[in-house]
Amino acid sequence: MIERVKTAMKELIKSYAARLEPQLYAAVGEKDGLTKTIYEAAGYSLKAGGKRLRPVLMLMFAELLGLAEQDVMPFACALEMIHTYSLIHDDLPAMDNDDLRRGKPTNHKVFGEAMAILAGDALLNMAAETVSAARCSIPAGRVLAAVHELFSASGTKGMIGGQVIDIESEGRAVSLETLQKLQLLKTGALIRAAGRVPAVLAAADEQQLEAITQYCENLGMAFQIRDDLLDVYGSTEELGKRIGSDEANQKTTYVSLCGMEKSEQLVEEYTGKAVASLDIFGDKAAQLKELAVYLTNRRS
Amino acid sequence: MIERVKTAMKELIKSYAARLEPQLYAAVGEKDGLTKTIYEAAGYSLKAGGKRLRPVLMLMFAELLGLAEQDVMPFACALEMIHTYSLIHDDLPAMDNDDLRRGKPTNHKVFGEAMAILAGDALLNMAAETVSAARCSIPAGRVLAAVHELFSASGTKGMIGGQVIDIESEGRAVSLETLQKLQLLKTGALIRAAGRVPAVLAAADEQQLEAITQYCENLGMAFQIRDDLLDVYGSTEELGKRIGSDEANQKTTYVSLCGMEKSEQLVEEYTGKAVASLDIFGDKAAQLKELAVYLTNRRS
Repeated sequence: MIERVKTAMKELIKSYAARLEPQLYAAVGEKDGLTKTIYEAAGYSLKAGGKRLRPVLMLMFAELLGLAEQDVMPFACALEMIHTYSLIHDDLPAMDNDDLRRGKPTNHKVFGEAMAILAGDALLNMAAETVSAARCSIPAGRVLAAVHELFSASGTKGMIGGQVIDIESEGRAVSLETLQKLQLLKTGALIRAAGRVPAVLAAADEQQLEAITQYCENLGMAFQIRDDLLDVYGSTEELGKRIGSDEANQKTTYVSLCGMEKSEQLVEEYTGKAVASLDIFGDKAAQLKELAVYLTNRRS
Repeated sequence: MIERVKTAMKELIKSYAARLEPQLYAAVGEKDGLTKTIYEAAGYSLKAGGKRLRPVLMLMFAELLGLAEQDVMPFACALEMIHTYSLIHDDLPAMDNDDLRRGKPTNHKVFGEAMAILAGDALLNMAAETVSAARCSIPAGRVLAAVHELFSASGTKGMIGGQVIDIESEGRAVSLETLQKLQLLKTGALIRAAGRVPAVLAAADEQQLEAITQYCENLGMAFQIRDDLLDVYGSTEELGKRIGSDEANQKTTYVSLCGMEKSEQLVEEYTGKAVASLDIFGDKAAQLKELAVYLTNRRS
């Protein structure tokens, strides 16, 4: 990917994130004396950075579909809250037992296990509070359907289901089929929601919904395989987390099942499918297409 | 309380619970091969019994306000899911570290810590899925407002906030004022939601909403003080959990702050206030009034 496009993509993501973050942080801005620790703990992880990939994707789809950004913003914030809570709980000693996340000590390392569990709970709950408080110009029935789309993605038939398969697969031989199911749920479901929630809010037609779903699912797969590759050849400094952790945890990944060369090839294939699926939107989808190429070619 | 009324109340609660439980259990009835453990773990705690106090209260308020039971049922299920998830997470080693709940091994004792954390997450998420999937005759805008009422009660300004104060108070001297705030949030917020959610769904007027709120808050206080008293003089057999656990955990309770006699007096006062607040509903509120007396005089 040429350097000029890379820079443009970085700037684009930054500009969306810059509009998202003040609204995201407002939810943890509370300073109530007795309960302030929970806002600090939740805020600590919310503010720890990250690419804001999911909410940025959602805002870009909102634009593609002609929605007002402010109408989708509560959902974008909720999506990032859900993603963040899942990281906090994933890092817990009983789960992946990670000390470092995005270059900083994990939540339980700073606030203790009890508060980290509660901070995760609080962020998931906050997501539900945020989307149900939304005052917008979209009919309430559609907002309710979008709430359902979001929480279906984060629940047992989505992200949590993926996490269950992940936990139960540790230390076992895992088939490619199971690995695909795992990734489609664990990482894929929230990325899928980033596209489908605005589609529901905009009452997109079947063809559009299908195209958006295809883009998200293929992007999710390519993104995850890139992640597996980065775990092997990335460096702790660049990624801000332990590398080689998959191997240390005996986790089956695309790389361990298919090898690096085939994995690189799969990234390219999935990315190509993601890009092609948006053809029905014409030029309006140019940025989303570039984003897919940018994200799946990242080196950190 | 005379024996005949007690029996009638028990039967009444049972009949509401009997209509609730099949719908509650349907949410964890999934049998998907790869993710079945999460449904088993969530179902284990959902089915572990308990009084179903919160959803039964909600269904009784729905009846008082003339709502169709089926329109409120998803919220009643969600409320019990939220209550159950909070118990699973409260019992974790990092929190209260309890081995026994409702006479059975706690969730993490059966399914392990990782799965117990996920089962809690899953139930909270399921609550959001359930209320947003509701197809009912109530306008969507009001349903959305009721969703917000529910998750405000379970979040950092409600139940989670109370849990934070609880954790931070352990081993410290706690004032009566802080203890009241703690209880009003930790136990009180969900009981409050049991009344306020149907009020929002029914578009109750200000006076009704205030009366219902008063009933719930006073009932919640009386209920909690009764709980503190039972922890002292109850028996493990009757309660199905360790007794004397408050003292062992050095937790401040109404009993430790005010003594048993004063605590008994407070139960009576709060119960009286709860009962009186429903006067504006006339005879229609007779069962809810009896329920308050029944619940706050319980011996197990």
